[in-house]
Amino acid sequence: MSHVQTTENLKIISLDVKDLRFPTSLHADGSDAMHTDPDYSCAYVTIKIQTGLEGHGLTFTLGRGTEIVVQAVKTLSSLVVGQVVTDIYKDFGTFWRSLTSESQLRWIGPEKGVTHLATAAIINALWDLWGKLLKKPVWQLLADLEPEQLVACIDFRYLTNVITKEEALELLKQGRKGKEERVNKLLEIGYPCYTTQAGNFDGWVIRMKKIRELAQKYLDLGFTAFKLKVGKNLYDDIKRLELVRNIIGWDKTLMVDANQVWEVQEAIDWMAQLAQFKPLWIEEPTSPDDVLGHAQISKALKPLGIGVASGEMCCNRVLFKQFLQADAIQFCQIDSARIGGVNEILSVYLMARKLGVKVCPHAGGVGLCEMVQHLQMWDYVALSGTSEGRYVEYIDQQHEHFVNPTNVKNAHYLAPRTPGYNTTFKPEAVANYVYPNGKEWESMFAKGIFSDPRKQK
Amino acid sequence: MSHVQTTENLKIISLDVKDLRFPTSLHADGSDAMHTDPDYSCAYVTIKIQTGLEGHGLTFTLGRGTEIVVQAVKTLSSLVVGQVVTDIYKDFGTFWRSLTSESQLRWIGPEKGVTHLATAAIINALWDLWGKLLKKPVWQLLADLEPEQLVACIDFRYLTNVITKEEALELLKQGRKGKEERVNKLLEIGYPCYTTQAGNFDGWVIRMKKIRELAQKYLDLGFTAFKLKVGKNLYDDIKRLELVRNIIGWDKTLMVDANQVWEVQEAIDWMAQLAQFKPLWIEEPTSPDDVLGHAQISKALKPLGIGVASGEMCCNRVLFKQFLQADAIQFCQIDSARIGGVNEILSVYLMARKLGVKVCPHAGGVGLCEMVQHLQMWDYVALSGTSEGRYVEYIDQQHEHFVNPTNVKNAHYLAPRTPGYNTTFKPEAVANYVYPNGKEWESMFAKGIFSDPRKQK
Repeated sequence: MSHVQTTENLKIISLDVKDLRFPTSLHADGSDAMHTDPDYSCAYVTIKIQTGLEGHGLTFTLGRGTEIVVQAVKTLSSLVVGQVVTDIYKDFGTFWRSLTSESQLRWIGPEKGVTHLATAAIINALWDLWGKLLKKPVWQLLADLEPEQLVACIDFRYLTNVITKEEALELLKQGRKGKEERVNKLLEIGYPCYTTQAGNFDGWVIRMKKIRELAQKYLDLGFTAFKLKVGKNLYDDIKRLELVRNIIGWDKTLMVDANQVWEVQEAIDWMAQLAQFKPLWIEEPTSPDDVLGHAQISKALKPLGIGVASGEMCCNRVLFKQFLQADAIQFCQIDSARIGGVNEILSVYLMARKLGVKVCPHAGGVGLCEMVQHLQMWDYVALSGTSEGRYVEYIDQQHEHFVNPTNVKNAHYLAPRTPGYNTTFKPEAVANYVYPNGKEWESMFAKGIFSDPRKQK
Repeated sequence: MSHVQTTENLKIISLDVKDLRFPTSLHADGSDAMHTDPDYSCAYVTIKIQTGLEGHGLTFTLGRGTEIVVQAVKTLSSLVVGQVVTDIYKDFGTFWRSLTSESQLRWIGPEKGVTHLATAAIINALWDLWGKLLKKPVWQLLADLEPEQLVACIDFRYLTNVITKEEALELLKQGRKGKEERVNKLLEIGYPCYTTQAGNFDGWVIRMKKIRELAQKYLDLGFTAFKLKVGKNLYDDIKRLELVRNIIGWDKTLMVDANQVWEVQEAIDWMAQLAQFKPLWIEEPTSPDDVLGHAQISKALKPLGIGVASGEMCCNRVLFKQFLQADAIQFCQIDSARIGGVNEILSVYLMARKLGVKVCPHAGGVGLCEMVQHLQMWDYVALSGTSEGRYVEYIDQQHEHFVNPTNVKNAHYLAPRTPGYNTTFKPEAVANYVYPNGKEWESMFAKGIFSDPRKQK
């Protein structure tokens, strides 16, 4: 740390959590076969230290249930408030374990579901704060950490049959070669992304006219990779994929996403019918918990040239470990807010690097694009050293609420330059969308657009 | 339904949930290497119908965090109140999915952690109510259901590559053969259990004198199977196992339990050192999420005659499916309150039956013994048709709070005769231990034994 800071003024004096909800269900934004009416939401954490500096972190939710995650953050906050942040950063892996293995709380996870989402929001806020303290964007903070400091952030428990701390160190040391050159390239052109917009709009059944417009729009914007939802009706899927291939041509990349609707054999059979459109991957063909099911699907689809992608609902590093071990996924879709924040995600990147699986982060929702860009950029400059065949998901939605939203140009995320994790909301976004008493919500309740939960007994 | 009941008076008019905590950490009851200071607790659900009849259900917790599960139950309650219970029971699998796949709430699970524990408490209360309506204990209610009715309780989503509804029906039809004879035998002698008491008392490191006393006590009570905690110190483990084998002899059954403390290779190496004591199984050798890790351990320990047991923290049927598919466990330890209640557990029993894996339920805590006895008795009379080589865990603790506690005689659970699921607390237990304002808690706060959470900001 380069500034004059006393231990006392680096003490965490408060942890605040808010339930923020955006009424995206009104336009069926981001809906899919499983999640038909999402109100993109988050548990939004603010951690303040004595100096007055604040770190902001969030975990993404779909509306109902955010109050449960908020309660979990409140319960965890006693483990955070009063700590000195520089002590946390010195031995961040140990602190991480103190949250995820608290002796009584562990039972209601462990390391999965609500408590892990809450952990992610807190941990992400601490990384935002760390970036702000060092005046660096998180991708650069990560890239500048010594390999020893970076592995000290990771809890290797349950991972050592696939990766040890020593192996991770070695990969990080190798990853530094040519870093400066890649940083310069990143600052110049950014990191490639794909769009889900041509297949993720206007409800699940997208009208053909809309598809045509959107595919053309994103093609014109320079996108070379497009993802469509599938899995509801085979005939419709064929018609829509035909249309999109006609517009984007065969030199562009096409992915499809089933959002967990299929049984294992059903996934194999259905995808055999869609193979003619040469999708790069089928995403979430079945239960996000089914490693062996995904392995079976991967094996069956490999001869058809189709990979399997999953991860946005993969609950922790132990599941990711198995997906990677079993060749159950060929595209690893880490999410920035489902597993326990940056620290745990680092371990997934390291396992993917060792086992040669490409990481293509999940994004969209609220704040997910803002966060994952940092992680993938760190991977590019300091670990895998390449962006070849990799993409970050991009959806142009809910960015306007952030002080420093993502900046996508020519189908590339531009490298963030501002300190932190880009997850600070504008004050008016908080004032309008805090649930249930934000201004926009009060107005919608008054108009009868939503019913007021405070009036239900 | 044999009684005169109108639809109207079978409507659910309220769902109440309470945070009940018992201060078991004061005596380190039930502590293990991971959970060092549990205060055995539960989220306790009361579902009332118009007639005034109440069903009671619970999910077990360890103290802190129960308030999060309570919040989740409150959120789910809007999906329950107002429903007609007989409609639920007619198509229980569909109702179950309406709780576990609610379009917005699903994101913060799915089907795991806090939301799934909350689902278990609600679903278990509905089974208690069903038993009370029909005036049958749940084991008998289950055994009396027609195979078609029973499979209608199950959501087969994500299971069909291992078991289909049709295969389940066939197994249930086969299972009925000889049922009456087994019911009579069950009513006469009960179902065999093992004790964890000789290795689960006085904190993790049990004193040799205590072990000697307890092993002898339970031997005298007729127990033939004993479980000890291991995994903290190899030398200690050897000394304690030596002592217990000396007391119980080599014709009795010994199990060991590591409570998830090991890495995969560490588990294999450690157990090789304990093989000399001929344990039947090693329980929870590593992460409860690590199917492939357990498979590797199982394979390594098979030549040593040691099986692998796990399940008390297995998060849902999809994980259980894989543990069973991969021969990762040879003893399937279902828990009555972690996965989504009776309905989901039935599917695990059916998969275990098909794949030939023995089910030996996890119990202890609060109310777990009361519940699992019903499930295992149903399996005995109506599915597997045997209790050979199977045991239910038994711990003599916290039973005094229930109106109809388990009744263990001569190392057998006696078959419950009272209607329901045996999970109704005595009114005084609720009044004393509701947290934080029960009488016992107020008294302990006043004495400074625990700090009052209401006085923390």
